[in-house]
Amino acid sequence: AMAGCGWARAVRGLLLDVSGVLYDSGADGGVPIAGSAEAVRRIKASGLKLQLCTNETQATRENFVRKLRAMGFDISVAEVTAPAPAACRLLKERGLRPHLLVHDDLIPEFAEIDKTNPNCVVLGDAAENFTYANLNEAFRLLVGMEKPVLISLGKGRYYKETDGLKLDVGAYMKALEYACDIQAEVVGKPAKRFFESALAELGVPPEQAIMIGDDIVSDVGGAQQCGMRALQVRTGKYRPCDENHPEVKPDAYVNNLAEAVDIILQQL
Amino acid sequence: AMAGCGWARAVRGLLLDVSGVLYDSGADGGVPIAGSAEAVRRIKASGLKLQLCTNETQATRENFVRKLRAMGFDISVAEVTAPAPAACRLLKERGLRPHLLVHDDLIPEFAEIDKTNPNCVVLGDAAENFTYANLNEAFRLLVGMEKPVLISLGKGRYYKETDGLKLDVGAYMKALEYACDIQAEVVGKPAKRFFESALAELGVPPEQAIMIGDDIVSDVGGAQQCGMRALQVRTGKYRPCDENHPEVKPDAYVNNLAEAVDIILQQL
Repeated sequence: AMAGCGWARAVRGLLLDVSGVLYDSGADGGVPIAGSAEAVRRIKASGLKLQLCTNETQATRENFVRKLRAMGFDISVAEVTAPAPAACRLLKERGLRPHLLVHDDLIPEFAEIDKTNPNCVVLGDAAENFTYANLNEAFRLLVGMEKPVLISLGKGRYYKETDGLKLDVGAYMKALEYACDIQAEVVGKPAKRFFESALAELGVPPEQAIMIGDDIVSDVGGAQQCGMRALQVRTGKYRPCDENHPEVKPDAYVNNLAEAVDIILQQL
Repeated sequence: AMAGCGWARAVRGLLLDVSGVLYDSGADGGVPIAGSAEAVRRIKASGLKLQLCTNETQATRENFVRKLRAMGFDISVAEVTAPAPAACRLLKERGLRPHLLVHDDLIPEFAEIDKTNPNCVVLGDAAENFTYANLNEAFRLLVGMEKPVLISLGKGRYYKETDGLKLDVGAYMKALEYACDIQAEVVGKPAKRFFESALAELGVPPEQAIMIGDDIVSDVGGAQQCGMRALQVRTGKYRPCDENHPEVKPDAYVNNLAEAVDIILQQL
């Protein structure tokens, strides 16, 4: 056994963030992080359960998985927990009929949801669909509701693409919150309920699961609040100052996913 | 003298809000509120000083005054205090070179300002210019600055046009504030400095001036914080619940501008 690796004991399943852990987004859909595809294979060969837990909302899970498989990751659609399906469950439970302001490629995820006569707005990273007209339409629907319900698929501030930084869904969420004087309900990390649904799909209780991510607050903090252990990788959006975060302290740091898997498999 | 009209004594100048006091915005540029054009003429004939104090940022003062004159108001450009010229003074004082995200019709107000190599962003009610690309560009410039400066021409939530409600500049201000983790500097009502510049143009000290507006917070509250008296008219965006506002209490309510002028002129 390795010294100081008590955090790796008694684990039966892993939740993995995707962007910044499996691959770096960028030109032509991104590039895999060295050793990550092999690490996924080793997890599966070990008998550990595995589930991806992502805030990706610019594509259906089918298209997202197609991209990951093309990069060499042995992943199936059932192994992806993403905000859109979680939002669909919430909509069904509460009898909500959404007006969608989302990316065109995400719309098929809502195929089975009644969208007539909307009584809520679902906001995703709509990218080019964030037009002046579309934002005004979402706003008008919200202020026209007796009790406005805004469901936001994440609350990120911004992200980086090859042609520069882009405002993420959280910025547009704040615009609508202010205009309507309401609070959005966030579906996706770091919402506790989202991690709980990922754990349910993983089929492992929180005390036997480890979350591995590059976001100190959304991945590590969110998972720990659900009673899971959580590691921060030093890839993706990791910055050295994360190691002095005033509120969140990971159970351990690892250089990358491959190193995390090395340690965990040695403890089995 | 009329009973209970002590608020109207010892006045030498009036600051008037425009939309909701002089006219109601709407189809074909709006319609004058009954008695308001005559009231402006009576103020001028009385020898009282008069200045309009508006948050209008969809047109230059020249075009705004042209519209008012076409509706019968005897107003000159020098009698309008608006956010864009106030922003220009602030930019010059602080050596700021703006990137403009504003309405096309407002751009001439910034003709004399150096806009090369921007070190701040000026945000107005850009309307159709609030595109995904333009918002990302403003965001990228801000996060690329060592000390990001965002100047917002107002902070309204929304307004009504004939084809429906529209998100106002405040919603987009909140989006950029959240994405950049900064606070915007607001130029326009209810900023104290903006009222002070209107008073300077009026040429009357605050204790001898009365503000007349339809917005309980932005007009009435803002003016009172500068030591002025302030009336709320029951026209424009006035709602009966304003009379129970938890924080702001006007010096008096009047049914409209004409009634306010009746009372003030009787006290001269």
